[in-house]
Amino acid sequence: MNSVHRHLVSIDDLSLAEIKSLFEHARTFATDLRGFAALCPGLISASLFYEPSTRTRLSFESAMLRLGGGVLTAADMRATSASKGESLADTVRVVSGSYADVIVLRHASEGAARLASQYSAVPVVNAGDGSHEHPTQTLCDLYNLWIERGRIEGINVVLAGDLRYSRTIHSFVYALARFGANIVCVPQPGFELPAYVVQRLREEFAVEPVRADATRLGDLAQSSDAVYLTPQKPHQLSLFTDGGKGLAVGRVDALYMTRPQTERFTDQDVPIQKYQQLSRREMAADALRDAVVMHPLPRREEIQPDMDEDPRSIYFKQAARGVPIRMAILAFLLGRIALDAPPHEFDARLFPAPVGVNPCRNPTCISRTETRHVRALYRLAARFPIRAHCGYCSHEIVAPLVGCTTTRHFHPHDSASARRIRPDHMVFFASEAEALAAQYEPAARVGATGG
Amino acid sequence: MNSVHRHLVSIDDLSLAEIKSLFEHARTFATDLRGFAALCPGLISASLFYEPSTRTRLSFESAMLRLGGGVLTAADMRATSASKGESLADTVRVVSGSYADVIVLRHASEGAARLASQYSAVPVVNAGDGSHEHPTQTLCDLYNLWIERGRIEGINVVLAGDLRYSRTIHSFVYALARFGANIVCVPQPGFELPAYVVQRLREEFAVEPVRADATRLGDLAQSSDAVYLTPQKPHQLSLFTDGGKGLAVGRVDALYMTRPQTERFTDQDVPIQKYQQLSRREMAADALRDAVVMHPLPRREEIQPDMDEDPRSIYFKQAARGVPIRMAILAFLLGRIALDAPPHEFDARLFPAPVGVNPCRNPTCISRTETRHVRALYRLAARFPIRAHCGYCSHEIVAPLVGCTTTRHFHPHDSASARRIRPDHMVFFASEAEALAAQYEPAARVGATGG
Amino acid sequence: MNSVHRHLVSIDDLSLAEIKSLFEHARTFATDLRGFAALCPGLISASLFYEPSTRTRLSFESAMLRLGGGVLTAADMRATSASKGESLADTVRVVSGSYADVIVLRHASEGAARLASQYSAVPVVNAGDGSHEHPTQTLCDLYNLWIERGRIEGINVVLAGDLRYSRTIHSFVYALARFGANIVCVPQPGFELPAYVVQRLREEFAVEPVRADATRLGDLAQSSDAVYLTPQKPHQLSLFTDGGKGLAVGRVDALYMTRPQTERFTDQDVPIQKYQQLSRREMAADALRDAVVMHPLPRREEIQPDMDEDPRSIYFKQAARGVPIRMAILAFLLGRIALDAPPHEFDARLFPAPVGVNPCRNPTCISRTETRHVRALYRLAARFPIRAHCGYCSHEIVAPLVGCTTTRHFHPHDSASARRIRPDHMVFFASEAEALAAQYEPAARVGATGG
Repeated sequence: MNSVHRHLVSIDDLSLAEIKSLFEHARTFATDLRGFAALCPGLISASLFYEPSTRTRLSFESAMLRLGGGVLTAADMRATSASKGESLADTVRVVSGSYADVIVLRHASEGAARLASQYSAVPVVNAGDGSHEHPTQTLCDLYNLWIERGRIEGINVVLAGDLRYSRTIHSFVYALARFGANIVCVPQPGFELPAYVVQRLREEFAVEPVRADATRLGDLAQSSDAVYLTPQKPHQLSLFTDGGKGLAVGRVDALYMTRPQTERFTDQDVPIQKYQQLSRREMAADALRDAVVMHPLPRREEIQPDMDEDPRSIYFKQAARGVPIRMAILAFLLGRIALDAPPHEFDARLFPAPVGVNPCRNPTCISRTETRHVRALYRLAARFPIRAHCGYCSHEIVAPLVGCTTTRHFHPHDSASARRIRPDHMVFFASEAEALAAQYEPAARVGATGG
Repeated sequence: MNSVHRHLVSIDDLSLAEIKSLFEHARTFATDLRGFAALCPGLISASLFYEPSTRTRLSFESAMLRLGGGVLTAADMRATSASKGESLADTVRVVSGSYADVIVLRHASEGAARLASQYSAVPVVNAGDGSHEHPTQTLCDLYNLWIERGRIEGINVVLAGDLRYSRTIHSFVYALARFGANIVCVPQPGFELPAYVVQRLREEFAVEPVRADATRLGDLAQSSDAVYLTPQKPHQLSLFTDGGKGLAVGRVDALYMTRPQTERFTDQDVPIQKYQQLSRREMAADALRDAVVMHPLPRREEIQPDMDEDPRSIYFKQAARGVPIRMAILAFLLGRIALDAPPHEFDARLFPAPVGVNPCRNPTCISRTETRHVRALYRLAARFPIRAHCGYCSHEIVAPLVGCTTTRHFHPHDSASARRIRPDHMVFFASEAEALAAQYEPAARVGATGG
Repeated sequence: MNSVHRHLVSIDDLSLAEIKSLFEHARTFATDLRGFAALCPGLISASLFYEPSTRTRLSFESAMLRLGGGVLTAADMRATSASKGESLADTVRVVSGSYADVIVLRHASEGAARLASQYSAVPVVNAGDGSHEHPTQTLCDLYNLWIERGRIEGINVVLAGDLRYSRTIHSFVYALARFGANIVCVPQPGFELPAYVVQRLREEFAVEPVRADATRLGDLAQSSDAVYLTPQKPHQLSLFTDGGKGLAVGRVDALYMTRPQTERFTDQDVPIQKYQQLSRREMAADALRDAVVMHPLPRREEIQPDMDEDPRSIYFKQAARGVPIRMAILAFLLGRIALDAPPHEFDARLFPAPVGVNPCRNPTCISRTETRHVRALYRLAARFPIRAHCGYCSHEIVAPLVGCTTTRHFHPHDSASARRIRPDHMVFFASEAEALAAQYEPAARVGATGG
C-alpha cells in the first residue's frame, strides 16, 4: 500500500481550490498545446483499459504526448491478460513497479480505481469505473463552464435528456452543487434524476429540489416536470417563485444535453416514444438566448446537425478542452506542476470493514467482482441512524444491524447504542442470522448483563 | 468546414510538380531515416483505422516517429467507439480539435476520407477508403519507379494478375497515365481491367487501348489477351505495330504483379484454375531482362520464393520505401517542409448536390452509409451528354434526368436544354417519378410556355 | 539472410560472460530508470505479437520508451495482417526494411523467432515462441537471483508447482544448470520435469538427478518426490547424502513457484486435487527461512495473499526488474551499449537439412506451420548414435535412418557407417519407404559393392 502519491479516483479527492488551480494551468496549456513538451520527458503513462473507450484513451494519451511523455497502451485488458486470471491488484503492482509513472485506468466495475490506488506505487487516474465516476470528464465539463462563464458559483445550468442512467450527469450534478451552481433538471419523462442522487445533494450540499416553472424554456421542457436544485434558502427562493407554478427559470448559462444510455435500460423502463431533441427551434426559447450547449459526446439524434454551426454550441470545443485539462491533471499527479492551493481536508475518511463480511451489496462493485485482494471499506454518511456507503462503489450499505468489533455485540442501526460504536469498529450485518453466524451477540440480551 | 489545410484524400489533390517535389524530399529522408527527428517534435498523428490494416498503420506510425512526432493509435475503431453510434464527422471533429495534428484515416466506405476532410481542423490522409483510393500506396509505387528508372514518363510498365478487383492497380493505372507511362496489361484471364477504368483513361488522359503482341513476354502472357494502354498517337503507334498481331511489347521497365483479391470475388467470377505465377522461369523472357519486379504485398503464391534473391525483385525495397515517402507526406501536410512546386489547378471542382436527393447509387459509399452529416457532392465529368461522378466515391451517377434548382425543371441528361444548366444548379434524378416527387416539372411540357 | 546483427532468439545466443555484463548494465539502469533517455532517441522497436501478451509487451515497450526510443505496436497480428495470408518471413522483411530498428516477436509456433532472425535486417528479440523459449523472462529471473544473492553459481534453488508444462521453468532450469546452480524439484504430483529436460541437463551440463530428502522443506514438499539436480560429483554428494533418504536439502536461496498451466493440460493428465499453495505456513519451514520467493506471474491461488507483505516475497520486484534487464537487452542489440565480454563460441552450429524432407515431427514447429519460406535446420546433439534436434523448435528429430547427400545412401542412425556422414550432408528419414521415395539406397546392400 502506497500513500505518498496523490491519485484522482474521485473528484472529491481534490479541493475546490485545487480544482480552480488546475483550471488555471489548463488554460495556460490551452494557449499553446504544443508548447509544453518539456514538462514530462522520460515519464510514461500506461492506459490500462479493461473496457475499450477509444475517445477517453486518446484524450489521455494525447495529453501525455503533448507533455513530452511516453505512452503504454493496453486498449482491451479484459480480452488479454485479464483472461489469464490475474487480479487487478497484481496487474497494478506490476505496471506501477517500473513500467509506468502514472496509470490511467478504465474498468467496468465500480470502485476499481479506488482498489488500484491502494496497490499502485504510482498515481492512478480513474478514467471511468463502471457507472460510478469519471472525474476527468466532470473536471472537463466544469472547466468548460469556468472558461465560458468565468465562474461556476451561482450560474444556472439546465440538464436535459437521460438524467437517470448517465454517470456523467450524476458526477456533474454533485460537482455543480459543490461549486454552488443552480441546477434545473428537464429530464426525458421516465428518466429523472434518481432519488439517491437527490438525497446525497441534500445531505452533502444542503441542496433542495423545488418545483420549477420552465415555461420560458419553451419546447424543450414541454413534457418534463422541471425541478430546480438550488443551494439557496427558502426566503431567497420566494423572490423568484411565481405563484403555484414553482421557481421561475430565468436566463440559462448552460444547457447540458445527454444521450439516452440505452445500453443500461432495463425492461421496467418507460419505452421512449420520442427522445428530447435539441435543434435551433428549441434553442429559440427566450431563456436559452445565450446558453452554451454542452454534450459529453458521442451524440446521436438528441442534438440535431443544425446546431453544429450555432455559436452557442460548444460541444466540440468541450471535447477539445479535454486535452489541456488532462495535461494539467497528469502534470500535477506526476509532480511537474504545483497547485497553488491547499488540498482537501477529508471529513469522510474510509474505514476498513473487517474482512470476510463485505457489507456492499452492489453486484458489480469491485469489492465483489475481485475478492482476492480486496479489503472491504466504507465511508460513514450519517451517525444517527447509522448510514454508510461502500468505500469503493459509493453504493449505500443496507445494514439494519451494526456490530462492534470490540464488544462483539450488534445493535439496530437506528438505536442509541449503535451511536456509540466507533467508526473504525463497525461491522455491518444484513440480518440477525448473519450477525450470529459471525459470532456476534445481540446487544439487547447482553445489555442486561452490562454490554 | 475547414479549408486552410491541405489534405491527401486522392492523389489528384497533388499536382505532378508537387509529387516530384515529394519524391525529392523522400529521397533525402531515405538517405538517413534516423536523421530527421527534429522535424516534427511536439506534433501528433492519430491513426484512425475503422478496419485493421497493420502494415499500412505501422508504416505511417514509423514515418511519424522517425520525424520525431508522437502517435495515437486506434487500430480498430469499428469495434470500439464506432459501436456507440458516433458519426465519422463527429469523431473527426473531436480528434482534430486538440488530440492530433494530422489524422491518418482508414475506412471501409468509399469517400470516407473526403467526408473526414470536410470536418477536420487538421490535415487528413487517406490510408485507404474501401475499394476507392489509397493514395500513399500509389505514391509509394510511383516513387519506386522514379527511384529505379529515374523518370516515369515514357517507361513501359507491365501489369499482371488480378486487374479487376485490385484497388491498388486502378489508382496506379490512372497515375501512370497521368505521368505519361506506357502500360501493358497482361491480366489473369477473367480479371481484366474494368471498362470504367479504361473509359476514364480515355476521357481524362487520352489514353487508348491497343491490342498488344506479348510474344516477347513469354510464359507470363501465354493465356492473356494483352492490351497496350498508351498516350501515343496512332501514327506513332504504326511504327511499332507488327502486322495484325498488335503493338509489339518491347523492353519492359517494370513488372507489377498483384495477388488475387479473392475476398472481393463474386459468384459470377470465372473460377481460377491456375493463377499467374512469377518465378525465374517466367522472368527469363527476353523483354523482362531488366524489368524490376514490384508487388504491393502481401503476396501469396503469385511470386515464387525463388524470385526473392533475384536482383530484379524490388518488392521488399518497395515496401521499405513506404516510410520515407510517408515521412515526406506527413512533413508536408504538417507544414514542416515546403514543396518547391505550384499546387494543382483543379478544373474538376466538387459541387454540392441538393440535400435529400443523394444521386450516388454505390451502396458502400460514405454518402449512403453515413447519412447524418453528409452533404452529397458530385464532380462533372462531361457536359454533353451530362455525366457526373459522386464527389466521395467517384462512382458514376446514373441519372437519365437532370434538374435545375433555379427553374425547377428537369431535362433528359443528353438533351440540348440540359446543357444549359449551371453545374452548381444541377439535381440528378433516376426517374421521372423521382423528379416529380421532388416537385420538379418536365422541361418539355413547360417548354411550350417558355420555361 | 542477414548475419551482421546479433539476435536474442535463445538464451544460448549469449555467453555467460555476456549475460553477466548485461546484468551490470541492467543494475545501472535500475538506479535511475528515467535517466537513460538519451541512449536510443530516433530508434524504433516494433512489437509484433501474433498472440496477445500484454504484460510482456508493455515491459518491452516501457524499456524502449525509457531508453528514449519510439514504439510500434501490433498487439494481435494473428487477428489482422496474418489473416491476409502473409508469411512471417515476408512480414519480418517488410518491418525490418525501414519501419523498425529492432523487432520484438511473440508467436504461437516454436522456432518462429529463429525463422524471423533469418529474414530480418534488424535484431530480433524472442518474446516467447510457443512452448519453446522466452529468453528475456529467463534473463530476468537470473538477474533477480544475481541481484538478490550476489551470484548464481552454487546457490540452491527450489522449483515448485507445475514443472511439466511451464515453458518458463524449462528454460530456467537449463540456465540454472549452465550457471552451476543446484536445483531442487518439488513438483505438484503428476507434473514433474519431463524426461527430455532431464536428459538434456545430463547431456549438456553433466547434471545428474539425485533423490532428495526434502524433510526440511516441510509442508510444501509433503506429497512430492523431491529430486536434486546438481552438477556436483558423486563423491561430493556423499558428503550430503543422508542414508537412504537421499541428498538432504539444506538452506534454500530461492523458491520459484509456478502456476498450473491449465491451458496446456491434456486428458491424460492427473486431475489436480489440490494444487500446491505457498503461504506463511509453508514458508515457516526451517530451510526456507531466508529463501526469496519468486513467481513469473500472473499468479492465482498458488501464492496466497498473506505472502505479499512478507519480506522474502520478491515476485513483484522480480517483474519490475523486467524493465531494466530489457533496457539492457535492447540497448545492446541496438548497438548503444557494449558488453565487456566475449561472445559465445558455438560448438553446436545449425545445419540446413535438404529442402523437401523436413525431419521435424513437432506439429506446432514453425517449420511445419509456415512452410513457404522455411529451410529445415537441425543441430547435432550426438554423433553416436546420431541424435539431432530441430534447429527451430529444439524438439528431437526421430529418424532411425540417416542419409548422406553425397553418396545418396542411407544408414541406421546407430550404425558405424552413419558415424562417417558429415553433419552438413545428413538427411533424416523416418522409414525406409521414405528414404527410398527420396531415391536414396540402403547402405547395406550398396556396401557390398563399395558404398
